[in-house]
Amino acid sequence: MQSSSEKSPLKPALGMLKSPSLAELGDLGESMHAMATKLYPLCRSITGEGLRETLRMIGERIPLEYTNIPSGTQAFDWTLPKEWTIREAWIKDPTGKKVIDFKDFNLHVVGYSTPIHTQLSLSDLRPHLHSIPDQPDWIPYRNSFYKEAWGFCLSQNHLDSLEEGQYEICIDSDLHDGHLSYAECFLPGSSSEEVLISTHVCHPSLANDNLSGIVVATELARHLASIDHRLSYRFLFIPSIIGSIAWLWKNENKLSNIHHGLTLALLGDSGFSNYKRSRRGNAAIDIAVEHVLKHSGQNYEIRDFAPWGYDERQYCSPGFNLPVGCFTRTPNGCFPEYHTSGDNLDFIKAEALADSLQKCMDVFKILEGNQSYVNTSPKGEPRLGHRVAYKGFTGKGGLARDDFSLLWVLNQSDGTKSLLDIAERAAYPFAAIRDAANALEACGLLKLKEEV
Amino acid sequence: MQSSSEKSPLKPALGMLKSPSLAELGDLGESMHAMATKLYPLCRSITGEGLRETLRMIGERIPLEYTNIPSGTQAFDWTLPKEWTIREAWIKDPTGKKVIDFKDFNLHVVGYSTPIHTQLSLSDLRPHLHSIPDQPDWIPYRNSFYKEAWGFCLSQNHLDSLEEGQYEICIDSDLHDGHLSYAECFLPGSSSEEVLISTHVCHPSLANDNLSGIVVATELARHLASIDHRLSYRFLFIPSIIGSIAWLWKNENKLSNIHHGLTLALLGDSGFSNYKRSRRGNAAIDIAVEHVLKHSGQNYEIRDFAPWGYDERQYCSPGFNLPVGCFTRTPNGCFPEYHTSGDNLDFIKAEALADSLQKCMDVFKILEGNQSYVNTSPKGEPRLGHRVAYKGFTGKGGLARDDFSLLWVLNQSDGTKSLLDIAERAAYPFAAIRDAANALEACGLLKLKEEV
Amino acid sequence: MQSSSEKSPLKPALGMLKSPSLAELGDLGESMHAMATKLYPLCRSITGEGLRETLRMIGERIPLEYTNIPSGTQAFDWTLPKEWTIREAWIKDPTGKKVIDFKDFNLHVVGYSTPIHTQLSLSDLRPHLHSIPDQPDWIPYRNSFYKEAWGFCLSQNHLDSLEEGQYEICIDSDLHDGHLSYAECFLPGSSSEEVLISTHVCHPSLANDNLSGIVVATELARHLASIDHRLSYRFLFIPSIIGSIAWLWKNENKLSNIHHGLTLALLGDSGFSNYKRSRRGNAAIDIAVEHVLKHSGQNYEIRDFAPWGYDERQYCSPGFNLPVGCFTRTPNGCFPEYHTSGDNLDFIKAEALADSLQKCMDVFKILEGNQSYVNTSPKGEPRLGHRVAYKGFTGKGGLARDDFSLLWVLNQSDGTKSLLDIAERAAYPFAAIRDAANALEACGLLKLKEEV
Repeated sequence: MQSSSEKSPLKPALGMLKSPSLAELGDLGESMHAMATKLYPLCRSITGEGLRETLRMIGERIPLEYTNIPSGTQAFDWTLPKEWTIREAWIKDPTGKKVIDFKDFNLHVVGYSTPIHTQLSLSDLRPHLHSIPDQPDWIPYRNSFYKEAWGFCLSQNHLDSLEEGQYEICIDSDLHDGHLSYAECFLPGSSSEEVLISTHVCHPSLANDNLSGIVVATELARHLASIDHRLSYRFLFIPSIIGSIAWLWKNENKLSNIHHGLTLALLGDSGFSNYKRSRRGNAAIDIAVEHVLKHSGQNYEIRDFAPWGYDERQYCSPGFNLPVGCFTRTPNGCFPEYHTSGDNLDFIKAEALADSLQKCMDVFKILEGNQSYVNTSPKGEPRLGHRVAYKGFTGKGGLARDDFSLLWVLNQSDGTKSLLDIAERAAYPFAAIRDAANALEACGLLKLKEEV
Repeated sequence: MQSSSEKSPLKPALGMLKSPSLAELGDLGESMHAMATKLYPLCRSITGEGLRETLRMIGERIPLEYTNIPSGTQAFDWTLPKEWTIREAWIKDPTGKKVIDFKDFNLHVVGYSTPIHTQLSLSDLRPHLHSIPDQPDWIPYRNSFYKEAWGFCLSQNHLDSLEEGQYEICIDSDLHDGHLSYAECFLPGSSSEEVLISTHVCHPSLANDNLSGIVVATELARHLASIDHRLSYRFLFIPSIIGSIAWLWKNENKLSNIHHGLTLALLGDSGFSNYKRSRRGNAAIDIAVEHVLKHSGQNYEIRDFAPWGYDERQYCSPGFNLPVGCFTRTPNGCFPEYHTSGDNLDFIKAEALADSLQKCMDVFKILEGNQSYVNTSPKGEPRLGHRVAYKGFTGKGGLARDDFSLLWVLNQSDGTKSLLDIAERAAYPFAAIRDAANALEACGLLKLKEEV
Repeated sequence: MQSSSEKSPLKPALGMLKSPSLAELGDLGESMHAMATKLYPLCRSITGEGLRETLRMIGERIPLEYTNIPSGTQAFDWTLPKEWTIREAWIKDPTGKKVIDFKDFNLHVVGYSTPIHTQLSLSDLRPHLHSIPDQPDWIPYRNSFYKEAWGFCLSQNHLDSLEEGQYEICIDSDLHDGHLSYAECFLPGSSSEEVLISTHVCHPSLANDNLSGIVVATELARHLASIDHRLSYRFLFIPSIIGSIAWLWKNENKLSNIHHGLTLALLGDSGFSNYKRSRRGNAAIDIAVEHVLKHSGQNYEIRDFAPWGYDERQYCSPGFNLPVGCFTRTPNGCFPEYHTSGDNLDFIKAEALADSLQKCMDVFKILEGNQSYVNTSPKGEPRLGHRVAYKGFTGKGGLARDDFSLLWVLNQSDGTKSLLDIAERAAYPFAAIRDAANALEACGLLKLKEEV
């Protein structure tokens, strides 16, 4: 039996985990978009100063713990990379005019470009210039993390306008031993069961991928930090792939606490919500997110797990197999602006960010409230009228849903089914089942399974 | 191994559980309708003389054991109610003319009305008058079992015709300590496995709900009493909710005998048959009823369990979880006449009653015959031609269904599958599979699983 | 851990089990049709010289072991039949002209006809004459294996042309103690796990049923005998029903070696491929054949097991329950030419034979390669770029299928899933998953489950 001090935070938390009002949501959406606007110009990569500055700005809004692991450290199968510093990068045309300048836009330089200062003819330069022929106005986003190389990105139209001749190329960068940096925000609840929320922070001026994930995760953490909650929440702000691998490596002994998890990304576009199931496929997080989307009244899509996407790939690798799904709007690679300059601040909408945030809160509400109960009067239906608000049968037709919810919870609470199982069985919103369970628990007809 | 004395009743019973002929069915339908006609005028409620008189009339046709439990007895979470006696109930209009009289029609008084004799203006009387505005010709059926109150029911047209003025109201009733009454008919078979058939007997002049259930259950019991059967059958005639709870409370130590069960109600309307699965969802009774309906050649509907309906709610409460489904035609609340004076003797049809009865008999035939066998010659197919009527392959096309049934039973009888499982697997009517098993058992190629 | 000598044959076999080229397939189809043409005139039955001559001709192409079991031997529920010899059989019309002669066409005599030499009027003869009224040009195929009888088969048109009068009937046959004969071709692999391929050899001049099965099985065995393979293959050429029962009876102690099996028949018609699942329904052979058909780009049909068809009925009897399915084109009884003279050499096509052969080879390739592996670097994704051909994420869109295959194999290889499971999960052709596993095994990221 849990002590009452452990139990007491549950009710306020459930009460406080209310959906924000429309007006509050509007404000939240604007404030998340404003935060994205501030983060947009920074040149993030999987290491380096832009990444650290981003983590510092997140830390202005929520309590963060920073971790820096030296380059060269071995983490499972990986060696942590050198740190990349980029100071300037430009190309001057034959007339000496700067035609591309990293200062103008940080997608112009290929991530992890090695330093160079030289002169090249346009034809020798061309292999180092990346564009998107069928999207001639947009500048692509390119990296070369694990193979030393240099290059520039520009629009196809821009490339086409370059004249033949001798160009001066300068990339003032270096790759040196430094650190891999990430940050986490841990919000302990009354239970040691953890919800892991992971979002990648390694992309330069791209708004949906993944400033949208960063600002929604930050706002979720800020919200949860202000209220009581039963579960513990751990938010990770990490560089993609290497960051989650490094975190898993450093925290392997704590992974058994993780009962649920989501990677968050691509949460600001106008498309509808999309959930990719965890490798397990039927974890509570999978059922909870699908429940929220099903009852949202909006279009949505559910996909089965595949070993591609964001850091759920690492959390769901066979050595860990954590119950972590991926929550996005339009998935990676499925919108034309993906990994181009078209993924800018106009592409993400305050309303979409707010809607994504609300759905995450709705999922958390389910995880918070999803407990298993035992009917304390399981032989026949107990009399309800004198105990709870139960209208019962008043003459014609069926029951009101609130009455039905009470009956469903009583009928199904044999200790083998969680409230989410019951909500799914009854095809009711989780909140209706949770409310019924609260009423029945209050009058003694229901007990938490662990208390029996 | 069963002794042959235990086994011998099986064959005659299976033989005798034949579908009635069309002419017999016609007679049965008429006789059930006639019994409903005799029961219709009685003022039944969850206790009292009308209920007991109903049980006595059922007892004229089948052997019944009567139980009376004192008011005030605690049965699980419930206290058995006081007994209600109603002698007269009327309203006189300002001219002294009786405008409503319980003697005319027993739905006119709200069930469990407390006594009153007073004068009231029409406007003070109105809160005690119940009608159905959108069905202006019908009188509703109302009760107040667990909250002391009084009232009258009348048609909306009748209500609209009442003039302003002072009315005299008289309800000569009382609520006193008495008994909760129910009756049961137990028909022992060669096996102690029981089939529970439960029908509620607490509604006044309503024909489909539930005289139809009463007369079909009575006729089923009369039929089974006249033939051999393997299983034991227990028919309960009980007031709804409180009756099944009281019975469960008194018989808790015998519940493990119940292997199958049905609540019967709403069996006389012109709609098609409807089965609501037990809470288990895949009990033999669930598969058997669905099998019968699927092979009936008629429309039908199968619904999953929900904790609402008739007494299956009590049998399927988590403390018992008995395999009891609910067999009806159009379900409760799904036809406009439900719980109104429109549910009268014209609303139920002799053919529908007969059809419902036949389907129940078909279900019993499956339960009787649904045993598990073991092929005694399981290595390769045994030679059939010299042992059973097996035409075999005669040149072209496939096999006759009778041959196929023999092969299916031999192939699947490894002790893990019942004959109903095999019928479902082969998509054949149960009778074809049962006949094949009989033939194979007769020639020694099949043995009852328990005999192996 | 397997020794490397046991393992080494795997790779060459997988390499050599390549699909034949189109030209090779064309040659194979023609050569199989030519073999069918040579076998067509022989008068096969479930015993006798025609059957043995057929086995001898198969033995000219592949190594065969012959078994002869004396008539009268008891095998499970069956007594092995007498041997039937037919020398001549004819009918002379009233003018003394032979109007039917077994020498012209062996379907003319009912199989296992007893000897007779007599004179009969046409009306007395008629009960012994079999025709197909609604297919007036075709001669039916009839037998009387287990009931002594004699008869002739002829076309309806032929029958209609016979004049009234006295006919002379001669059947010079005998039923004597001899042997039941069958042959098998065993091709041992590095593993003792066996694939059983069974085809019936007891039909006279019928091409699809089952010269098609005989020639495809023969050619498969010839092919496998020429290459390395991991699994052992056992090809049975047996008379239908009694042959498989006799084989099972003689080999009962070796059946545990059989891990997969197919009966082959009806492989030459122009219809599409059809697979009937084993009694288990989800054996590896069931999944493998369905995988091949699904990825063939052609129409196909999958049927659930039913205890009718070819010798899979015996292998799948409950006492054995071997994982043996049945691979055909249009199933038995589903084409009008079935068991008539219409099932002749024109009815089977070289292309269809070649296509059936190729699909069997594709199934064998899956069975050969379907092993379970364990990811040796299961914590997070291992780095791939420096180990295998892995393009990775190059900017836009998804991954190439080869990359995805590597990720699927790594993600799913936790020891509980075979490569075929993974191919099904990823919805990729098995070959892509097998190739990925080879690459990962070569660089040490994957180990056979048994080696871990």
